[in-house]
Amino acid sequence: MTVHPAHERVLTGEWEVPVTRVSLTNGETFDRYCTTGPGSEPEVGLAARRAAWIDERGDTETYPGRETQLLDNGRAAVRRGEARGEWRGDRRPPRRAVAGRNVTQMHYARRGVVTAEMEYVAAREGCDVELVRSELAAGRAIIPVNVNHPECEPMIIGRRFLVKVNANIGNSAVTSSIAEEVDKLTWAVTWGADTVMDLSTGDDIHTTREWIVRNSPVPIGTVPIYQALEKVDGEADRLTWEIFRDTVIEQCEQGVDYMTIHAGVLLRHVPLTAERVTGIVSRGGSIMAGWCLAHHQENFLHTHFDELCEIFARYDVSFSLGDGLRPGSVADANDEAQLAELRTLAELTERAWRHDVQVMVEGPGHVPLDLVEENVRLQQEWCQGAPFYTLGPLATDVAPGYDHITSAIGAAAIAMHGTAMLCYVTPKEHLGLPDRDDVKTGVITYKLAAHAADVAKGHPGARDWDDALSRARFEFRWHDQFALSLDPQTAQAFHDETLPAEGAKTAHFCSMCGPKFCSMRISQDVRERFREKSAELVALGSTVYVETVAE
Amino acid sequence: MTVHPAHERVLTGEWEVPVTRVSLTNGETFDRYCTTGPGSEPEVGLAARRAAWIDERGDTETYPGRETQLLDNGRAAVRRGEARGEWRGDRRPPRRAVAGRNVTQMHYARRGVVTAEMEYVAAREGCDVELVRSELAAGRAIIPVNVNHPECEPMIIGRRFLVKVNANIGNSAVTSSIAEEVDKLTWAVTWGADTVMDLSTGDDIHTTREWIVRNSPVPIGTVPIYQALEKVDGEADRLTWEIFRDTVIEQCEQGVDYMTIHAGVLLRHVPLTAERVTGIVSRGGSIMAGWCLAHHQENFLHTHFDELCEIFARYDVSFSLGDGLRPGSVADANDEAQLAELRTLAELTERAWRHDVQVMVEGPGHVPLDLVEENVRLQQEWCQGAPFYTLGPLATDVAPGYDHITSAIGAAAIAMHGTAMLCYVTPKEHLGLPDRDDVKTGVITYKLAAHAADVAKGHPGARDWDDALSRARFEFRWHDQFALSLDPQTAQAFHDETLPAEGAKTAHFCSMCGPKFCSMRISQDVRERFREKSAELVALGSTVYVETVAE
Repeated sequence: MTVHPAHERVLTGEWEVPVTRVSLTNGETFDRYCTTGPGSEPEVGLAARRAAWIDERGDTETYPGRETQLLDNGRAAVRRGEARGEWRGDRRPPRRAVAGRNVTQMHYARRGVVTAEMEYVAAREGCDVELVRSELAAGRAIIPVNVNHPECEPMIIGRRFLVKVNANIGNSAVTSSIAEEVDKLTWAVTWGADTVMDLSTGDDIHTTREWIVRNSPVPIGTVPIYQALEKVDGEADRLTWEIFRDTVIEQCEQGVDYMTIHAGVLLRHVPLTAERVTGIVSRGGSIMAGWCLAHHQENFLHTHFDELCEIFARYDVSFSLGDGLRPGSVADANDEAQLAELRTLAELTERAWRHDVQVMVEGPGHVPLDLVEENVRLQQEWCQGAPFYTLGPLATDVAPGYDHITSAIGAAAIAMHGTAMLCYVTPKEHLGLPDRDDVKTGVITYKLAAHAADVAKGHPGARDWDDALSRARFEFRWHDQFALSLDPQTAQAFHDETLPAEGAKTAHFCSMCGPKFCSMRISQDVRERFREKSAELVALGSTVYVETVAE
Repeated sequence: MTVHPAHERVLTGEWEVPVTRVSLTNGETFDRYCTTGPGSEPEVGLAARRAAWIDERGDTETYPGRETQLLDNGRAAVRRGEARGEWRGDRRPPRRAVAGRNVTQMHYARRGVVTAEMEYVAAREGCDVELVRSELAAGRAIIPVNVNHPECEPMIIGRRFLVKVNANIGNSAVTSSIAEEVDKLTWAVTWGADTVMDLSTGDDIHTTREWIVRNSPVPIGTVPIYQALEKVDGEADRLTWEIFRDTVIEQCEQGVDYMTIHAGVLLRHVPLTAERVTGIVSRGGSIMAGWCLAHHQENFLHTHFDELCEIFARYDVSFSLGDGLRPGSVADANDEAQLAELRTLAELTERAWRHDVQVMVEGPGHVPLDLVEENVRLQQEWCQGAPFYTLGPLATDVAPGYDHITSAIGAAAIAMHGTAMLCYVTPKEHLGLPDRDDVKTGVITYKLAAHAADVAKGHPGARDWDDALSRARFEFRWHDQFALSLDPQTAQAFHDETLPAEGAKTAHFCSMCGPKFCSMRISQDVRERFREKSAELVALGSTVYVETVAE
């Protein structure tokens, strides 16, 4: 799926890393980071390019794997006596580390091993591979790549790298189909999603995920408690470690790259939410809080955390430590419930690292702008630099229907201060399930927020893109301005509304001011005049001028 | 124009200040600041409520006024031999200060006089009137109210008050009509614009403005150089102080409340823009820079600045000191051209204050997030706290079509640090002239950015709105959530897309997660369970719990 005739996906360098190459009308090209993937036939899936890299390391084995059950696709499948829409492409046997081995990228990095994934990522980011390896080893970055997701084009999440964007997709009990979800995946990566989370909670959950993973060039994240809850017919009290563990292995074998685990919701934290304006707003958080209270026991995700680490180490699944107690309103931001959980997540980060398992830490949510920096500062301090992955945050609660914007404001600010990945929010947040258009709006909004943060951080080369577009703008290369835009189609469509003629695409004005008032045109005239007048101006003795021309 | 059945414009208190009263389904009401105005018949205009206040002061006189000329409506009117679409409502003779008097709100404030306008504004902001008076006296706030705009409902712009939003409207040579512009004005204030600038540059410029001012409940700003340029057929070199002065008086008599004056673009500043990526992007700035170079003279707005102050003092027109050299790309942000002009604007602020003329200072533009705070810090320092009025700023250049968002990110940040008013940017920025939908999107986007800043500043009472909405959300009062939204129609429409039935508007779930997975519902269950279990928990000896219930 190409977003503009001037765009091309090009594989560059020894590692054949994709870039989006934009061809400009002045003969130049501009290369941008590319998430699109090579494009797939949904029923066939993507090529398993990474399989050879994994194979060559010789530390994994294939095995028969867990037997699929009807319940994996929910009660409806059990009632019907069959799953539906099953995956028709190749089925590879699952792969895992041979007994006693650890196959995480963190494990390799800590032993000084530079993997193909690290090389690929370094080429993609345009940085030294040693930066990649050392940040992975320190836990300050992760490369989420399950050995069972060889279709994935590796990418890195960490504050020293480009800020990344995650898009959530997934069906719910109320709406949507497998085909729609695969389409949303493709649509999301077309516009720049760096990872995609499948948050399905309805029927066909196993099958939907299979289609998504097989077609995804980006890491896939999930929240396995959602599927586990389906298996107990939505009754949280009936959840057990055994059901959860089995679900995790099911998903590890499918190739999920990172999983949200709400292990920081502890029994003693629940009372801290009692006086909140919006209580607990994380689905996983509320499920686990309910379980803890019902059983009067500590969260089984916490008590069995080391077992989870051992499983994750065999597939290289990364933790996304869920913030089950994140604030759901600005009133609840940075309160004791949130911070108590964050302290627990910091302890869990250390525990995972002892297993060389990769970790990122999830963050809020709804946070007023004056408290945004504190969120990332505390997380970075307490979690020793583990990547922060935040949902927005929304800077105000008053604009449902526009929460992609209220949250992009917080997202840009928190990323500038060090958040490594931003989970998008669509215009439908709080109101409904995002459709295709909402997915696009959400991704574009978050890409611009992430890029604004890259520019603010002075990330090497980040501003080149702004400068290329601004030069095109100043030189009235309208087609180049469109082609360099995050969303070329929308930019051109807006221009077409008032000046559709091809001549207007090179005209030295636009409909905003009309020909007489175009500041850009006048400014160019001024520049020419200034150059003509320069001798006279020097004669005037303007020192400022002399300094400028001395450059 | 009502935006929601639960909304009502109510006049409250001794000063009959309007509030938007939102009726909630739980019997409560919530009052919000109201910009809408009482609604007008466009051909009749609004009632001149303020006329009595002005009259009572006894320091103004009516006079015949300047004779309207065909050229006031541009060359087309001259060619036709007549103006078209002329104002058909009441024509009041213009009013000005009697000779030797000064009628600015700043002048009154400095003498310790509390005007009706100050009382009105204090009631509107819910603050003490002495705060209003003292901030006006110090120059840290302005009430832009021309004595010839008695239809205006006074409002205040200053960092100690609610952050305000301006919407730009106006035709250009390429498109739109008088009726459309009046409709855009009404539409903009309906959604919350605190002031409106008429940036018309095409035909019928005088008449369009007359219709706008007569129908506007909010202050109207203009950039008089645009009309002056029309009078010399778009040839900047032919501009003179005399033509400009005459245009300013024309607009003072019509009732324009504040005018952008690009008096800070000095001859010596022009060379500083020569190496910029995007040169000069302000229309007024480029016009004046061109004039300076062509004539090799200092900007006549600068050389005649004291005369302008004398004129403004007789009508109480406020300066909006234009930033003609604002950066048009992140590459040019905070450069020497921008800062040199800001120093000049600081000098001009002091000069205006010597005449007791109210001043705000315009700011950028395009600024990367890491430089945003410096902009407002320098402006506040150099201009001694004069209100800052910024256009965005856009935090990145790469997203034309989404520049309401790129700029809302910068706007929320700069307002949090002290900008008093934000000039909106619509999705059409850089691409075309905003239509009705773009005006709404721009206003809503900026209202949420301004409110996010109010919340971040801890402005008294600002968060009450968020809390009221979040409570409605947590209690599944869907209709209240919609009614409290910045844009109730959009919020409800998005909810209707998946759950249109009336029953869903009280349902304890939504389509995002479905009934089984609703975190809000589970969280309420958790809260109930927690209350049941409290005795047991206390027995467990959880000190955290004890602290919580002790409240």
